[in-house]
Amino acid sequence: MAPVMRRIAILGSTGSIGRSTLSVAESYPERFQIVALAAGRNLEAAFEQARRWRPHLLSIVSEADAEVLRARFKQAGLNGVEVVCGAAGTVQVATHAEADFVVSAIVGVAGLEATYEAVKAGKIVGVANKECLVAAGELITAEARRQGKPLLPIDSEHNAVHQCLRGGRMEEVERIWLTASGGPFLNTPRSEFASITVEQALNHPTWKMGKRITIDSATLMNKGFEVIEACRLFHISPAKVEVLVHPQSTVHSMVEFVDGSILAQFSVTDMRLPILYALTYPERIQSDMRFPVGNLRHLDFSPPDMDKFPCLRLAYEAVEAGGAKAVALNAADEIAVAAFLEGSVGFDDIPRIIEDAVSASNSGKLQSIAKVLEADAEARRYAQERVLRVTNKTFRPRATSVV
Amino acid sequence: MAPVMRRIAILGSTGSIGRSTLSVAESYPERFQIVALAAGRNLEAAFEQARRWRPHLLSIVSEADAEVLRARFKQAGLNGVEVVCGAAGTVQVATHAEADFVVSAIVGVAGLEATYEAVKAGKIVGVANKECLVAAGELITAEARRQGKPLLPIDSEHNAVHQCLRGGRMEEVERIWLTASGGPFLNTPRSEFASITVEQALNHPTWKMGKRITIDSATLMNKGFEVIEACRLFHISPAKVEVLVHPQSTVHSMVEFVDGSILAQFSVTDMRLPILYALTYPERIQSDMRFPVGNLRHLDFSPPDMDKFPCLRLAYEAVEAGGAKAVALNAADEIAVAAFLEGSVGFDDIPRIIEDAVSASNSGKLQSIAKVLEADAEARRYAQERVLRVTNKTFRPRATSVV
Repeated sequence: MAPVMRRIAILGSTGSIGRSTLSVAESYPERFQIVALAAGRNLEAAFEQARRWRPHLLSIVSEADAEVLRARFKQAGLNGVEVVCGAAGTVQVATHAEADFVVSAIVGVAGLEATYEAVKAGKIVGVANKECLVAAGELITAEARRQGKPLLPIDSEHNAVHQCLRGGRMEEVERIWLTASGGPFLNTPRSEFASITVEQALNHPTWKMGKRITIDSATLMNKGFEVIEACRLFHISPAKVEVLVHPQSTVHSMVEFVDGSILAQFSVTDMRLPILYALTYPERIQSDMRFPVGNLRHLDFSPPDMDKFPCLRLAYEAVEAGGAKAVALNAADEIAVAAFLEGSVGFDDIPRIIEDAVSASNSGKLQSIAKVLEADAEARRYAQERVLRVTNKTFRPRATSVV
Repeated sequence: MAPVMRRIAILGSTGSIGRSTLSVAESYPERFQIVALAAGRNLEAAFEQARRWRPHLLSIVSEADAEVLRARFKQAGLNGVEVVCGAAGTVQVATHAEADFVVSAIVGVAGLEATYEAVKAGKIVGVANKECLVAAGELITAEARRQGKPLLPIDSEHNAVHQCLRGGRMEEVERIWLTASGGPFLNTPRSEFASITVEQALNHPTWKMGKRITIDSATLMNKGFEVIEACRLFHISPAKVEVLVHPQSTVHSMVEFVDGSILAQFSVTDMRLPILYALTYPERIQSDMRFPVGNLRHLDFSPPDMDKFPCLRLAYEAVEAGGAKAVALNAADEIAVAAFLEGSVGFDDIPRIIEDAVSASNSGKLQSIAKVLEADAEARRYAQERVLRVTNKTFRPRATSVV
């Protein structure tokens, strides 16, 4: 049987997940074809990707960049690549008629609309964008169910859960156990949290990642987001999603079944593995990403400390409360982390800012992506003001605050 | 949907696995009905099981015991229980028309023929009898394939593998990793092996089991048998089955897939769990056998030392060579362990006796259960003589040796 050829569109092709996806595609030319790319602001990378992959469609952020690319493509004889731009261009990539699989890897709420449109267009979507599930998970998963198409998680934890879930039916799941590295402050006393520096917080023990997600790992907010993502992806109540600290980040997550059996997944810590899994599901194909099982020595686990890491507790509360609460959680976290990274607020201010923003948000159900984006903007404004109060700058009333 | 009612026959109902099976059946009366029992030599236990479960058929070892039971059943008003005996009686239980699931849990080669007949009669068979797979695995699994019925492993390791295999297809399996507690002599220097006492060897760190299997765990021969069982059950070459020492016996086994993902299964160490899994497969049902995942702390692993534990190496060699080699491995081990338990040979004589018996056996394919039993008897005679030589008793030529 000839392998199924996946025709892939990537939202966020010049980011980390986008580049890893292209690296996977590179290894299996008989399996994967790149039909459309939505790049970020890195013009040079976008040009090189187009030259290498010859997609039918390339979208870039600004119209000016699009013009430059069109000229360069013409010069390079790349006639088959149509260049579009902006949010509309991203949606064109996400819904490209030739694509059957869309990798959603644009960071932030910018990827929301295009991802939703991809699902609505009946594409199989591999989700690496956190906001798709944290902020708009109910809308996106409901649409995927309507389409009868899978949403495949491209992150190590949910991908692990997806694999373990193959050992039974959803009704047979007792609990999902997400593992957490615990971040760099697992053993730091709470009393020292106020004086944690940016440099310390950026020093993640097991994964090398972007700055925001590294800080989110240090506060355990990232694990909180993952709890919400698990609830959305697997249609399970937060009471059935637990977190277990596992400093080696070897076991990526586990599923406990009603009969008392637990299945756990582990592998090397390489994002290409969950990407490959999603791109080939329900098949598995040979890779060179071998975990040396024979060299396995020690795996350590401990329960998370929700008092020391209130962000995790806030995530449970937000998903329980519903509505815009999870949207606010994500939006306020982005603002608070940015403020911490620029030195405006302390490490222990992050959960305080988020808690206030979540409290101020609504719990009514959000009926559309537009409503999600409104709630997101509202929470950002609120969090920004809250940051300003911490930094003792002049308090500015909400109506005139700057996002 | 009403649950499927399993109608169960148990071969070895008064043994440990048999009693655990009845304990599982007791917990789910709406799921399981006991239709036939083949008991061992414990007359009282057989009587009580018949009174409690009212099977259509009960088989007991001797004709004399059968007579006693018939009289007692009559006296107790148990008119519906037919009593049979001997090997023929066991086969009657294994092929009982009312049974759809047969638990094969008679220890030793005594269970071979009845298990084979159960498979041939189209029953789903749960295999707890080691010899079924070590000595007659090729015949029994070939017959199960012909019947299109599953052979479900009732032991923690292969049951774990069976669960992990649900995460992919057999062609996608890179390796099976069987975990081993390492037994009580994991950290004992090789130089002390000659002076190991029976008492020390019977002191297994994690599982409470019968004497032979406890010694087999101390020599790692039990893990060797499990390697062979895995090859048979999952139709995989020994080169793809590895052993990893894991002293806590928490992770019961693992499967590594070609893409680099590894799935591991863990649970409480309670035989009722694999029994329940087999009895309800492909469903899972709620049990009270909860592993406290939140209390998980440390899991340790290390590679096995095949020089210190030559039995494991012998098992790999026997299954590679094929034919009667695995039969001889099992038969000679039973003789050698019995000799060790009665103080006739030393702990380090066990692998020597087995190695010689395996060398003396044939590697031609065994075409029937009768041929397996012949090879078994031959290997026992050989091993018995070999024991006698160790104990410095008068050497008796093979033709007149006593089994």
